[in-house]
Amino acid sequence: MSKNLVIASTSTVYGSGYLEYLLPTLQAHFRSVKEIVFIPYARPGGISYDRYTAIAQKAFNAININAKGIHEFSNPTEAIAKADGLFTGGGNTFELVNQLYKKELMPILRDALFNGLPYLGTSAGSNICGLTMQTSNDMPIVYPPSFKTLGALPFNINPHYQDPIEGDTHMGETRETRINEFHNFSTIPVIGLREGSWLDVSDKTITLQGGLNARVFEKGIEPYEIQSGATLHF
Amino acid sequence: MSKNLVIASTSTVYGSGYLEYLLPTLQAHFRSVKEIVFIPYARPGGISYDRYTAIAQKAFNAININAKGIHEFSNPTEAIAKADGLFTGGGNTFELVNQLYKKELMPILRDALFNGLPYLGTSAGSNICGLTMQTSNDMPIVYPPSFKTLGALPFNINPHYQDPIEGDTHMGETRETRINEFHNFSTIPVIGLREGSWLDVSDKTITLQGGLNARVFEKGIEPYEIQSGATLHF
Repeated sequence: MSKNLVIASTSTVYGSGYLEYLLPTLQAHFRSVKEIVFIPYARPGGISYDRYTAIAQKAFNAININAKGIHEFSNPTEAIAKADGLFTGGGNTFELVNQLYKKELMPILRDALFNGLPYLGTSAGSNICGLTMQTSNDMPIVYPPSFKTLGALPFNINPHYQDPIEGDTHMGETRETRINEFHNFSTIPVIGLREGSWLDVSDKTITLQGGLNARVFEKGIEPYEIQSGATLHF
Repeated sequence: MSKNLVIASTSTVYGSGYLEYLLPTLQAHFRSVKEIVFIPYARPGGISYDRYTAIAQKAFNAININAKGIHEFSNPTEAIAKADGLFTGGGNTFELVNQLYKKELMPILRDALFNGLPYLGTSAGSNICGLTMQTSNDMPIVYPPSFKTLGALPFNINPHYQDPIEGDTHMGETRETRINEFHNFSTIPVIGLREGSWLDVSDKTITLQGGLNARVFEKGIEPYEIQSGATLHF
Protein backbone atom coordinates (compact mmCIF):
# COMPACT_ATOMS: atom_id res chain seq x y z
CA MET A 1 0.00 0.00 0.00
CA SER A 2 2.08 2.92 -1.22
CA LYS A 3 0.91 5.53 -3.68
CA ASN A 4 2.91 6.58 -6.68
CA LEU A 5 1.18 9.48 -8.40
CA VAL A 6 1.99 12.51 -10.52
CA ILE A 7 -0.91 14.95 -10.33
CA ALA A 8 -0.49 17.83 -12.74
CA SER A 9 -2.40 21.06 -13.19
CA THR A 10 -2.25 20.85 -16.99
CA SER A 11 -1.00 18.58 -19.77
CA THR A 12 0.46 21.48 -21.68
CA VAL A 13 2.16 24.72 -20.74
CA TYR A 14 2.07 27.69 -23.06
CA GLY A 15 4.42 27.48 -26.05
CA SER A 16 5.34 23.82 -25.57
CA GLY A 17 4.06 20.45 -26.85
CA TYR A 18 1.64 18.04 -25.18
CA LEU A 19 3.20 16.78 -21.89
CA GLU A 20 6.59 18.13 -23.04
CA TYR A 21 7.43 19.95 -19.80
CA LEU A 22 6.71 16.75 -17.84
CA LEU A 23 8.68 14.25 -19.93
CA PRO A 24 11.80 14.05 -17.69
CA THR A 25 9.50 13.51 -14.70
CA LEU A 26 7.47 10.86 -16.52
CA GLN A 27 10.59 9.06 -17.64
CA ALA A 28 11.52 8.56 -13.99
CA HIS A 29 7.94 7.97 -12.85
CA PHE A 30 7.25 5.22 -15.39
CA ARG A 31 10.85 3.95 -15.47
CA SER A 32 10.12 0.21 -15.57
CA VAL A 33 6.92 0.53 -17.62
CA LYS A 34 6.71 -0.52 -21.30
CA GLU A 35 3.05 0.32 -21.86
CA ILE A 36 0.57 2.51 -20.03
CA VAL A 37 -3.22 2.39 -20.22
CA PHE A 38 -4.66 5.77 -21.22
CA ILE A 39 -8.11 6.89 -20.03
CA PRO A 40 -9.47 9.32 -22.65
CA TYR A 41 -13.02 9.68 -21.24
CA ALA A 42 -12.72 13.42 -20.52
CA ARG A 43 -12.59 14.10 -24.30
CA PRO A 44 -11.27 17.69 -24.42
CA GLY A 45 -13.19 19.66 -27.04
CA GLY A 46 -15.25 16.53 -27.62
CA ILE A 47 -12.56 14.69 -29.64
CA SER A 48 -12.89 10.93 -30.12
CA TYR A 49 -11.19 8.43 -27.82
CA ASP A 50 -9.03 7.32 -30.76
CA ARG A 51 -7.82 10.80 -31.61
CA TYR A 52 -7.15 11.63 -27.96
CA THR A 53 -5.23 8.39 -27.44
CA ALA A 54 -3.08 9.16 -30.50
CA ILE A 55 -2.04 12.45 -28.87
CA ALA A 56 -1.07 10.71 -25.61
CA GLN A 57 0.69 7.98 -27.58
CA LYS A 58 2.84 10.45 -29.47
CA ALA A 59 4.02 12.10 -26.23
CA PHE A 60 4.78 8.80 -24.48
CA ASN A 61 6.55 7.39 -27.53
CA ALA A 62 9.13 10.15 -27.08
CA ILE A 63 10.18 8.40 -23.85
CA ASN A 64 9.87 4.91 -25.37
CA ILE A 65 6.62 3.98 -23.68
CA ASN A 66 3.55 2.75 -25.53
CA ALA A 67 0.10 4.08 -24.64
CA LYS A 68 -3.04 2.05 -25.28
CA GLY A 69 -6.53 3.52 -24.93
CA ILE A 70 -8.72 1.82 -22.33
CA HIS A 71 -11.51 1.75 -24.94
CA GLU A 72 -9.37 -0.64 -27.02
CA PHE A 73 -9.72 -3.34 -24.36
CA SER A 74 -12.82 -5.54 -24.33
CA ASN A 75 -12.90 -5.34 -20.52
CA PRO A 76 -11.85 -1.95 -19.08
CA THR A 77 -11.89 -3.24 -15.46
CA GLU A 78 -9.39 -5.92 -16.42
CA ALA A 79 -7.35 -3.36 -18.38
CA ILE A 80 -6.87 -1.33 -15.18
CA ALA A 81 -6.27 -4.41 -13.02
CA LYS A 82 -3.51 -5.62 -15.34
CA ALA A 83 -1.97 -2.24 -16.24
CA ASP A 84 1.66 -1.41 -15.45
CA GLY A 85 0.90 2.31 -15.49
CA LEU A 86 -2.10 4.61 -15.97
CA PHE A 87 -2.66 8.06 -17.42
CA THR A 88 -5.96 9.93 -17.23
CA GLY A 89 -5.99 12.95 -19.53
CA GLY A 90 -7.80 16.25 -19.10
CA GLY A 91 -10.99 17.53 -20.66
CA ASN A 92 -14.40 17.68 -19.02
CA THR A 93 -14.43 16.38 -15.44
CA PHE A 94 -18.22 15.85 -15.39
CA GLU A 95 -18.04 13.52 -18.40
CA LEU A 96 -14.92 11.76 -17.07
CA VAL A 97 -16.58 11.07 -13.70
CA ASN A 98 -19.82 10.09 -15.43
CA GLN A 99 -18.06 7.46 -17.57
CA LEU A 100 -16.05 6.10 -14.62
CA TYR A 101 -19.31 5.57 -12.70
CA LYS A 102 -21.25 4.22 -15.71
CA LYS A 103 -18.51 1.70 -16.44
CA GLU A 104 -18.16 0.91 -12.72
CA LEU A 105 -14.45 1.69 -12.78
CA MET A 106 -14.18 3.83 -9.64
CA PRO A 107 -13.44 0.92 -7.23
CA ILE A 108 -10.77 -0.73 -9.40
CA LEU A 109 -9.16 2.62 -10.17
CA ARG A 110 -9.08 3.46 -6.49
CA ASP A 111 -7.50 0.09 -5.69
CA ALA A 112 -4.87 0.64 -8.38
CA LEU A 113 -3.92 4.07 -7.03
CA PHE A 114 -3.82 2.92 -3.41
CA ASN A 115 -1.74 -0.14 -4.35
CA GLY A 116 1.13 1.80 -5.88
CA LEU A 117 0.41 1.65 -9.61
CA PRO A 118 2.33 4.51 -11.29
CA TYR A 119 -0.35 7.04 -12.24
CA LEU A 120 -0.35 10.31 -14.12
CA GLY A 121 -3.29 12.68 -14.06
CA THR A 122 -3.57 16.02 -15.82
CA SER A 123 -6.35 18.56 -15.17
CA ALA A 124 -9.60 16.47 -15.06
CA GLY A 125 -7.40 13.40 -14.51
CA SER A 126 -6.00 15.17 -11.42
CA ASN A 127 -9.39 16.35 -10.18
CA ILE A 128 -10.53 12.74 -9.80
CA CYS A 129 -7.68 12.01 -7.38
CA GLY A 130 -9.16 14.40 -4.83
CA LEU A 131 -12.00 13.66 -2.43
CA THR A 132 -14.64 15.20 -4.69
CA MET A 133 -14.82 16.93 -8.09
CA GLN A 134 -16.48 19.94 -6.47
CA THR A 135 -13.62 22.31 -7.26
CA SER A 136 -13.46 21.53 -10.97
CA ASN A 137 -13.53 24.49 -13.36
CA ASP A 138 -15.51 22.60 -15.97
CA MET A 139 -18.96 23.13 -17.41
CA PRO A 140 -21.63 20.70 -16.12
CA ILE A 141 -22.35 19.32 -19.60
CA VAL A 142 -23.49 15.94 -18.26
CA TYR A 143 -25.00 14.90 -14.90
CA PRO A 144 -22.80 12.31 -13.17
CA PRO A 145 -24.32 9.99 -10.52
CA SER A 146 -22.13 11.60 -7.84
CA PHE A 147 -19.43 14.24 -7.34
CA LYS A 148 -17.39 11.85 -5.15
CA THR A 149 -14.03 10.91 -6.60
CA LEU A 150 -11.12 8.61 -5.75
CA GLY A 151 -9.87 10.17 -2.52
CA ALA A 152 -6.26 9.31 -3.25
CA LEU A 153 -5.44 12.76 -1.85
CA PRO A 154 -6.73 14.10 1.49
CA PHE A 155 -7.91 17.30 -0.26
CA ASN A 156 -9.34 18.57 -3.54
CA ILE A 157 -7.47 19.94 -6.54
CA ASN A 158 -8.26 23.12 -8.41
CA PRO A 159 -6.25 22.71 -11.62
CA HIS A 160 -5.31 25.58 -13.96
CA TYR A 161 -5.43 27.81 -10.88
CA GLN A 162 -5.58 31.48 -11.90
CA ASP A 163 -4.84 34.49 -9.76
CA PRO A 164 -7.23 37.44 -9.99
CA ILE A 165 -6.18 39.58 -12.95
CA GLU A 166 -5.32 43.09 -11.82
CA GLY A 167 -7.52 45.73 -13.45
CA ASP A 168 -9.86 43.09 -14.90
CA THR A 169 -13.25 44.58 -15.77
CA HIS A 170 -15.03 41.22 -16.03
CA MET A 171 -17.57 40.77 -13.22
CA GLY A 172 -17.68 36.94 -13.19
CA GLU A 173 -16.34 35.36 -9.99
CA THR A 174 -12.59 34.97 -9.49
CA ARG A 175 -11.25 31.50 -8.78
CA GLU A 176 -10.64 32.47 -5.16
CA THR A 177 -14.27 33.60 -4.74
CA ARG A 178 -15.50 30.29 -6.14
CA ILE A 179 -13.30 28.24 -3.80
CA ASN A 180 -14.41 30.36 -0.85
CA GLU A 181 -18.03 29.63 -1.83
CA PHE A 182 -17.18 25.92 -1.72
CA HIS A 183 -16.01 26.35 1.87
CA ASN A 184 -19.49 27.45 2.88
CA PHE A 185 -20.51 23.85 2.27
CA SER A 186 -17.38 21.82 2.92
CA THR A 187 -14.30 21.56 5.11
CA ILE A 188 -12.24 19.82 2.40
CA PRO A 189 -8.98 21.75 1.79
CA VAL A 190 -8.30 22.80 -1.81
CA ILE A 191 -4.92 23.07 -3.53
CA GLY A 192 -4.90 25.62 -6.36
CA LEU A 193 -2.30 24.19 -8.76
CA ARG A 194 -0.98 26.73 -11.27
CA GLU A 195 -0.16 25.60 -14.81
CA GLY A 196 3.30 24.01 -14.80
CA SER A 197 2.94 22.71 -11.22
CA TRP A 198 2.33 19.15 -10.16
CA LEU A 199 2.13 17.09 -7.00
CA ASP A 200 4.42 14.13 -6.53
CA VAL A 201 2.78 11.54 -4.29
CA SER A 202 5.20 8.87 -3.05
CA ASP A 203 3.64 6.67 -0.42
CA LYS A 204 2.37 9.18 2.19
CA THR A 205 4.60 12.07 1.11
CA ILE A 206 3.06 14.72 -1.11
CA THR A 207 5.49 17.25 -2.60
CA LEU A 208 4.82 20.30 -4.79
CA GLN A 209 6.90 20.23 -7.98
CA GLY A 210 7.47 22.58 -10.91
CA GLY A 211 8.63 26.17 -10.88
CA LEU A 212 5.64 27.85 -9.25
CA ASN A 213 4.02 28.22 -5.86
CA ALA A 214 0.63 26.68 -5.16
CA ARG A 215 -2.22 28.33 -3.29
CA VAL A 216 -3.83 26.50 -0.38
CA PHE A 217 -7.42 27.11 0.71
CA GLU A 218 -8.56 25.83 4.08
CA LYS A 219 -11.96 26.63 5.51
CA GLY A 220 -11.90 29.51 7.95
CA ILE A 221 -8.34 30.73 7.39
CA GLU A 222 -6.75 33.09 4.87
CA PRO A 223 -5.51 31.32 1.71
CA TYR A 224 -1.73 30.95 1.69
CA GLU A 225 1.08 30.07 -0.68
CA ILE A 226 3.39 27.06 -0.53
CA GLN A 227 6.65 26.94 -2.42
CA SER A 228 7.82 24.42 -4.97
CA GLY A 229 9.59 21.59 -3.15
CA ALA A 230 7.40 21.91 -0.06
CA THR A 231 5.78 18.88 1.49
CA LEU A 232 2.02 19.06 2.06
CA HIS A 233 0.65 17.97 5.42
CA PHE A 234 -3.08 17.40 5.86
CA MET B 1 -50.19 32.64 -20.61
CA SER B 2 -47.69 35.32 -21.61
CA LYS B 3 -44.18 35.63 -20.30
CA ASN B 4 -42.73 38.84 -18.96
CA LEU B 5 -39.05 38.34 -18.20
CA VAL B 6 -35.81 40.29 -18.05
CA ILE B 7 -32.90 37.85 -18.24
CA ALA B 8 -29.59 39.57 -17.66
CA SER B 9 -26.01 38.37 -18.01
CA THR B 10 -24.90 40.14 -14.85
CA SER B 11 -26.28 42.24 -12.01
CA THR B 12 -23.40 44.66 -12.20
CA VAL B 13 -21.31 46.10 -15.00
CA TYR B 14 -17.79 47.31 -14.33
CA GLY B 15 -17.56 50.70 -12.63
CA SER B 16 -21.25 50.95 -11.72
CA GLY B 17 -23.47 50.02 -8.76
CA TYR B 18 -25.56 46.91 -8.23
CA LEU B 19 -28.28 46.74 -10.95
CA GLU B 20 -27.56 50.40 -11.80
CA TYR B 21 -27.34 49.92 -15.59
CA LEU B 22 -30.69 48.10 -15.55
CA LEU B 23 -32.72 50.53 -13.43
CA PRO B 24 -34.54 52.32 -16.30
CA THR B 25 -35.46 48.91 -17.72
CA LEU B 26 -36.62 47.64 -14.34
CA GLN B 27 -38.70 50.75 -13.74
CA ALA B 28 -40.71 49.92 -16.88
CA HIS B 29 -40.64 46.16 -16.29
CA PHE B 30 -42.03 46.39 -12.75
CA ARG B 31 -44.11 49.53 -13.41
CA SER B 32 -47.22 48.54 -11.43
CA VAL B 33 -45.33 46.62 -8.74
CA LYS B 34 -44.92 47.92 -5.17
CA GLU B 35 -42.97 44.96 -3.77
CA ILE B 36 -40.99 42.18 -5.35
CA VAL B 37 -39.99 38.87 -3.79
CA PHE B 38 -36.23 38.35 -3.92
CA ILE B 39 -34.71 34.86 -4.15
CA PRO B 40 -31.23 35.02 -2.55
CA TYR B 41 -30.47 31.27 -2.63
CA ALA B 42 -27.44 31.60 -4.96
CA ARG B 43 -25.52 33.42 -2.18
CA PRO B 44 -22.62 35.01 -4.12
CA GLY B 45 -19.42 34.63 -2.13
CA GLY B 46 -21.46 32.73 0.45
CA ILE B 47 -23.11 35.83 1.97
CA SER B 48 -26.21 35.39 4.12
CA TYR B 49 -29.75 35.65 2.70
CA ASP B 50 -30.28 38.76 4.83
CA ARG B 51 -27.19 40.56 3.60
CA TYR B 52 -27.91 39.65 -0.01
CA THR B 53 -31.51 40.82 0.30
CA ALA B 54 -30.34 44.15 1.71
CA ILE B 55 -28.25 44.69 -1.43
CA ALA B 56 -31.21 43.96 -3.72
CA GLN B 57 -33.44 46.13 -1.54
CA LYS B 58 -31.15 49.12 -1.82
CA ALA B 59 -31.14 48.91 -5.63
CA PHE B 60 -34.92 48.51 -5.91
CA ASN B 61 -35.59 51.28 -3.41
CA ALA B 62 -33.97 53.66 -5.91
CA ILE B 63 -36.97 53.02 -8.18
CA ASN B 64 -39.46 53.06 -5.29
CA ILE B 65 -40.00 49.32 -5.12
CA ASN B 66 -39.62 47.28 -1.98
CA ALA B 67 -37.82 43.94 -2.05
CA LYS B 68 -38.57 41.19 0.47
CA GLY B 69 -36.43 38.07 0.78
CA ILE B 70 -38.29 34.81 0.17
CA HIS B 71 -36.66 33.46 3.36
CA GLU B 72 -38.63 36.05 5.35
CA PHE B 73 -41.91 34.30 4.45
CA SER B 74 -43.04 31.30 6.48
CA ASN B 75 -44.20 29.58 3.28
CA PRO B 76 -41.96 30.21 0.24
CA THR B 77 -44.37 28.47 -2.18
CA GLU B 78 -47.11 30.86 -1.12
CA ALA B 79 -44.69 33.79 -1.33
CA ILE B 80 -44.12 33.03 -5.03
CA ALA B 81 -47.81 32.32 -5.69
CA LYS B 82 -48.83 35.68 -4.21
CA ALA B 83 -45.90 37.78 -5.51
CA ASP B 84 -46.42 40.76 -7.81
CA GLY B 85 -42.88 40.47 -9.12
CA LEU B 86 -39.84 38.24 -8.67
CA PHE B 87 -36.08 38.69 -8.76
CA THR B 88 -33.57 35.86 -8.56
CA GLY B 89 -30.05 37.14 -7.98
CA GLY B 90 -26.76 35.64 -9.12
CA GLY B 91 -24.19 33.59 -7.25
CA ASN B 92 -23.70 29.85 -7.45
CA THR B 93 -26.14 28.13 -9.84
CA PHE B 94 -25.59 24.67 -8.27
CA GLU B 95 -26.67 25.92 -4.85
CA LEU B 96 -29.56 27.95 -6.30
CA VAL B 97 -30.92 24.93 -8.19
CA ASN B 98 -30.29 22.70 -5.18
CA GLN B 99 -32.36 24.94 -2.90
CA LEU B 100 -35.17 25.32 -5.45
CA TYR B 101 -35.45 21.51 -5.66
CA LYS B 102 -35.07 20.95 -1.90
CA LYS B 103 -37.80 23.47 -1.15
CA GLU B 104 -39.92 22.08 -4.02
CA LEU B 105 -40.21 25.51 -5.61
CA MET B 106 -39.48 24.57 -9.25
CA PRO B 107 -43.14 23.90 -10.24
CA ILE B 108 -44.57 27.08 -8.68
CA LEU B 109 -41.74 29.19 -10.08
CA ARG B 110 -42.31 27.72 -13.52
CA ASP B 111 -46.05 28.45 -13.27
CA ALA B 112 -45.32 32.04 -12.21
CA LEU B 113 -42.98 32.63 -15.16
CA PHE B 114 -45.33 31.03 -17.68
CA ASN B 115 -48.30 33.00 -16.34
CA GLY B 116 -46.81 36.43 -16.92
CA LEU B 117 -45.41 37.41 -13.52
CA PRO B 118 -42.78 40.13 -14.07
CA TYR B 119 -39.46 38.39 -13.43
CA LEU B 120 -35.85 39.54 -13.28
CA GLY B 121 -32.95 37.11 -13.35
CA THR B 122 -29.26 37.97 -13.24
CA SER B 123 -26.48 35.45 -13.87
CA ALA B 124 -27.49 32.30 -11.91
CA GLY B 125 -31.05 33.72 -11.82
CA SER B 126 -30.92 33.79 -15.62
CA ASN B 127 -29.39 30.33 -15.97
CA ILE B 128 -32.44 28.79 -14.29
CA CYS B 129 -34.74 30.23 -16.99
CA GLY B 130 -33.12 28.03 -19.63
CA LEU B 131 -33.85 24.36 -20.27
CA THR B 132 -30.95 23.15 -18.13
CA MET B 133 -28.14 24.62 -16.01
CA GLN B 134 -25.55 22.73 -18.06
CA THR B 135 -23.95 25.87 -19.46
CA SER B 136 -23.37 27.56 -16.12
CA ASN B 137 -19.86 28.83 -15.41
CA ASP B 138 -20.08 28.02 -11.73
CA MET B 139 -18.17 25.61 -9.54
CA PRO B 140 -20.07 22.42 -8.60
CA ILE B 141 -19.86 23.15 -4.85
CA VAL B 142 -23.07 21.21 -4.09
CA TYR B 143 -24.77 18.29 -5.89
CA PRO B 144 -28.31 19.26 -6.95
CA PRO B 145 -30.90 16.51 -7.59
CA SER B 146 -31.03 17.45 -11.30
CA PHE B 147 -29.56 19.91 -13.80
CA LYS B 148 -33.04 20.54 -15.33
CA THR B 149 -34.27 24.09 -14.89
CA LEU B 150 -37.41 26.10 -15.65
CA GLY B 151 -37.50 25.96 -19.44
CA ALA B 152 -39.01 29.43 -19.74
CA LEU B 153 -36.63 29.89 -22.68
CA PRO B 154 -36.27 27.40 -25.55
CA PHE B 155 -32.48 27.42 -25.10
CA ASN B 156 -29.78 27.71 -22.43
CA ILE B 157 -28.00 30.82 -21.23
CA ASN B 158 -24.28 31.25 -20.77
CA PRO B 159 -24.05 34.40 -18.65
CA HIS B 160 -20.91 36.54 -18.30
CA TYR B 161 -19.98 35.32 -21.79
CA GLN B 162 -16.29 35.98 -22.48
CA ASP B 163 -14.54 36.03 -25.83
CA PRO B 164 -11.18 34.27 -26.07
CA ILE B 165 -8.49 36.72 -24.94
CA GLU B 166 -5.98 37.33 -27.71
CA GLY B 167 -2.46 36.34 -26.75
CA ASP B 168 -3.66 34.61 -23.58
CA THR B 169 -1.10 32.09 -22.31
CA HIS B 170 -3.52 30.29 -19.99
CA MET B 171 -4.24 26.75 -21.21
CA GLY B 172 -7.64 26.27 -19.53
CA GLU B 173 -10.56 25.91 -21.94
CA THR B 174 -12.12 29.01 -23.53
CA ARG B 175 -15.83 29.55 -23.05
CA GLU B 176 -16.42 28.63 -26.69
CA THR B 177 -14.56 25.30 -26.24
CA ARG B 178 -16.70 24.49 -23.21
CA ILE B 179 -19.97 25.23 -25.02
CA ASN B 180 -18.82 23.15 -27.99
CA GLU B 181 -18.13 20.28 -25.57
CA PHE B 182 -21.73 20.63 -24.34
CA HIS B 183 -22.93 20.14 -27.93
CA ASN B 184 -21.36 16.70 -27.99
CA PHE B 185 -24.09 15.70 -25.57
CA SER B 186 -27.00 18.02 -26.32
CA THR B 187 -28.83 19.79 -29.14
CA ILE B 188 -29.97 22.65 -26.86
CA PRO B 189 -28.92 26.01 -28.36
CA VAL B 190 -26.90 28.30 -26.08
CA ILE B 191 -26.97 32.10 -25.98
CA GLY B 192 -23.69 33.60 -24.77
CA LEU B 193 -24.81 36.83 -23.08
CA ARG B 194 -22.00 39.34 -22.59
CA GLU B 195 -21.99 41.52 -19.45
CA GLY B 196 -24.35 44.45 -20.00
CA SER B 197 -26.69 42.46 -22.26
CA TRP B 198 -30.09 41.08 -21.37
CA LEU B 199 -33.00 39.33 -23.01
CA ASP B 200 -36.42 40.87 -22.92
CA VAL B 201 -39.10 38.17 -23.08
CA SER B 202 -42.59 39.51 -23.80
CA ASP B 203 -45.06 36.76 -24.46
CA LYS B 204 -43.40 34.72 -27.23
CA THR B 205 -41.03 37.47 -28.41
CA ILE B 206 -37.45 37.34 -27.18
CA THR B 207 -35.31 40.41 -27.92
CA LEU B 208 -31.65 41.07 -27.21
CA GLN B 209 -31.14 44.33 -25.28
CA GLY B 210 -28.16 46.36 -24.08
CA GLY B 211 -25.27 47.73 -26.08
CA LEU B 212 -23.52 44.50 -27.09
CA ASN B 213 -23.95 41.60 -29.49
CA ALA B 214 -24.66 38.13 -28.18
CA ARG B 215 -23.07 34.91 -29.45
CA VAL B 216 -25.31 32.03 -30.47
CA PHE B 217 -24.18 28.41 -30.35
CA GLU B 218 -26.21 25.79 -32.18
CA LYS B 219 -25.08 22.20 -32.50
CA GLY B 220 -23.39 21.47 -35.81
CA ILE B 221 -23.06 25.03 -37.13
CA GLU B 222 -20.48 27.76 -36.64
CA PRO B 223 -21.27 30.08 -33.70
CA TYR B 224 -22.65 33.42 -34.87
CA GLU B 225 -23.35 36.90 -33.52
CA ILE B 226 -26.71 38.60 -33.14
CA GLN B 227 -27.04 42.32 -32.71
CA SER B 228 -28.71 44.25 -29.91
CA GLY B 229 -32.36 44.74 -30.82
CA ALA B 230 -32.57 41.47 -32.74
CA THR B 231 -35.39 39.03 -32.11
CA LEU B 232 -34.42 35.44 -31.32
CA HIS B 233 -36.22 32.63 -33.12
CA PHE B 234 -35.87 29.06 -31.91
